[in-house]
Amino acid sequence: MGLMGHSRMGLVLSGMRLEGISAYAPEEVWSNARVAARLRLERMRRRAAGSGPLGAEEAKLFETSDRWVRRFIGFQERRFCSDGEATIDLAAQAARLLLERTGTGPGEIDSILFGSVTPTHLYSPPDAAMLQDSLGIPLWNDGRPREIKGADVSLACSTWVSALAMAYSFIRSGMAQRILLIGADRMSATINWRDRSFATVLGDAGTATLCSAVPEDEDWFAPSQFWSWLDGSQADMILTPVGGSRRPDPTADELALGQQRLAMDGAKVRSTLVPFVGGPAADAALTKAGWRFEDLDFVALHEANRTLNASIVGEWRRRGFGGEVLDAGGMFGNTTAASIPLALALNPEQLAAGKRFGLFAFGGGLSASFALGTIRHPLPAFVQLGPR
Amino acid sequence: MGLMGHSRMGLVLSGMRLEGISAYAPEEVWSNARVAARLRLERMRRRAAGSGPLGAEEAKLFETSDRWVRRFIGFQERRFCSDGEATIDLAAQAARLLLERTGTGPGEIDSILFGSVTPTHLYSPPDAAMLQDSLGIPLWNDGRPREIKGADVSLACSTWVSALAMAYSFIRSGMAQRILLIGADRMSATINWRDRSFATVLGDAGTATLCSAVPEDEDWFAPSQFWSWLDGSQADMILTPVGGSRRPDPTADELALGQQRLAMDGAKVRSTLVPFVGGPAADAALTKAGWRFEDLDFVALHEANRTLNASIVGEWRRRGFGGEVLDAGGMFGNTTAASIPLALALNPEQLAAGKRFGLFAFGGGLSASFALGTIRHPLPAFVQLGPR
Repeated sequence: MGLMGHSRMGLVLSGMRLEGISAYAPEEVWSNARVAARLRLERMRRRAAGSGPLGAEEAKLFETSDRWVRRFIGFQERRFCSDGEATIDLAAQAARLLLERTGTGPGEIDSILFGSVTPTHLYSPPDAAMLQDSLGIPLWNDGRPREIKGADVSLACSTWVSALAMAYSFIRSGMAQRILLIGADRMSATINWRDRSFATVLGDAGTATLCSAVPEDEDWFAPSQFWSWLDGSQADMILTPVGGSRRPDPTADELALGQQRLAMDGAKVRSTLVPFVGGPAADAALTKAGWRFEDLDFVALHEANRTLNASIVGEWRRRGFGGEVLDAGGMFGNTTAASIPLALALNPEQLAAGKRFGLFAFGGGLSASFALGTIRHPLPAFVQLGPR
Repeated sequence: MGLMGHSRMGLVLSGMRLEGISAYAPEEVWSNARVAARLRLERMRRRAAGSGPLGAEEAKLFETSDRWVRRFIGFQERRFCSDGEATIDLAAQAARLLLERTGTGPGEIDSILFGSVTPTHLYSPPDAAMLQDSLGIPLWNDGRPREIKGADVSLACSTWVSALAMAYSFIRSGMAQRILLIGADRMSATINWRDRSFATVLGDAGTATLCSAVPEDEDWFAPSQFWSWLDGSQADMILTPVGGSRRPDPTADELALGQQRLAMDGAKVRSTLVPFVGGPAADAALTKAGWRFEDLDFVALHEANRTLNASIVGEWRRRGFGGEVLDAGGMFGNTTAASIPLALALNPEQLAAGKRFGLFAFGGGLSASFALGTIRHPLPAFVQLGPR
């Protein structure tokens, strides 16, 4: 209890720091050219299957090139899991790296918040439980079951910041002291190879962040420094047509068409989210916190698409933002729940005490989830590419 | 801010009450006999498909009867969604009922925690966002985007109590004031009709619970009154073999066998979870809270299986529990994320101020999540069967 502040009623109130952050991406690199070749192969298969001639619109969905992807998406390459590799493996690699390098014993973890949109198994078992076993987090203590809190958390591309807000609530309210926060996605499992929209965009990665209780006056955050938004009126902009509880029994035709995979109306995403995240959403979050754009030393913006993100950052610059933009440089694709912690882990030189930062996630739902904070302790960061 | 306590540092600390609870179950009733007939039909199809003779072990998986289900599971009937009805519809029906009957405007909701293992769509959009739209929760306020927090939360049959703990953390830490907590599952979408294990067990339902901030001294809960557990070493006991990120491309044979559906080793579940939940897990939760079994006026135990639950309650009675057991009486099956709030909503006469209660969820993962509380305000409850 020494760490924590106490309210006038004797109740515990803590702050939260990030004590370490790690990222893992699989070995297999997919260049834009390789993605383009895979789409061409799929078009040949589609023709060979003889389901009629390709219309001009459909044919376009298979067409891409390194030049096109660099120009319109800003990505150079991404990494995909091998067959049989799952979200839990990405998370476990990152979490083991984090625990080893920070010298944290599995027995010091009291909670697992597993942020992902690509669970290893449908329905059950949850990834949070599987990670307990992967890491050897102890189940018993003196013959009594040792409490471990947690759950799987999902909110499309806003997953990680939303799970960070939950971690903060757990710690601030005294429900947990040391949380392993995961952001991990095998997005390659969601790709429809008959549609370049997401095929050129998505990538796989796992991250782990250690969220720890600190005295209230060392808090990196505050309740007013989290801001979120849910807008289901535009749910169909980023959507998987079949395979969920609305359509649990896809037909063979639907499966052949890739309807069980993610689809996106990229033009609408851009025309809706750029002005929203670039303007009123960021304004609302800053206003709530009592911050200005000028206060931000750096931001990490969910790497949905680097040209789209450049438009958002352009809006922010016009509003006074003069800081750094941390990202993964188009080398990992859009890794959904992993993107923001991956961007932090890849830029350790920016993670200096005293820096004020903004974490901005947005995406399917539609959804947005933002966090503003100040680094007040050392934040070591670790990256590993391919298994050890 | 008048509602909330303030810590010595001027920060907000609140308690949480439940302000209303509602449950919705679809119109279509499936008796045990109807489930048995459906399994027989599937056996005929399996034979007609001519994939070799049925072995004795496999044949047994199709065999059940009303008598068998009543004896070994204790269920009489359950309700299934119609084709095209999804988890979001179950949740929206329950939430609308709750808002109408409690006189709560959609604009009073600041957060949606959507507990479910059967998302309406894979990957995106999240159900929490879709529910914003279904309920007409306002997105804008004086030309500025109105904050709405939330996410989808999943932890097998422990989902709802885990999401309740998150709701508590949000409110206690001042991150939210009025949360719509959903527990909803279309479990019929997860049934493998070649395996009686879950076919005889699962049911569909949606629930909504209004979680509201109250002054700290009216708190129904406390951080010490939540207890959870994650044990991935037994993850294969309740598992969906294919369709997640480990195996995103099931073969046609696997699909025909129902490998994309939930499977359970029922004997192991019973031999593991009865002694654990009946003994050390419940003891740990009570000890943490400083409560005894004698303190509990009623419990709601996740209705996994009524004979299994009777064994757990038997253990508790031997330890001093003398209260009521609230459940759905075997009339709705195992509704996963909906089971505990459904049991509460079906027993409004028990929800009297002053009552001390325990909510006990356990299941796949393995996982367990418990909450102990005291009713301190009126708790209206509403149930609706079939759409209005």
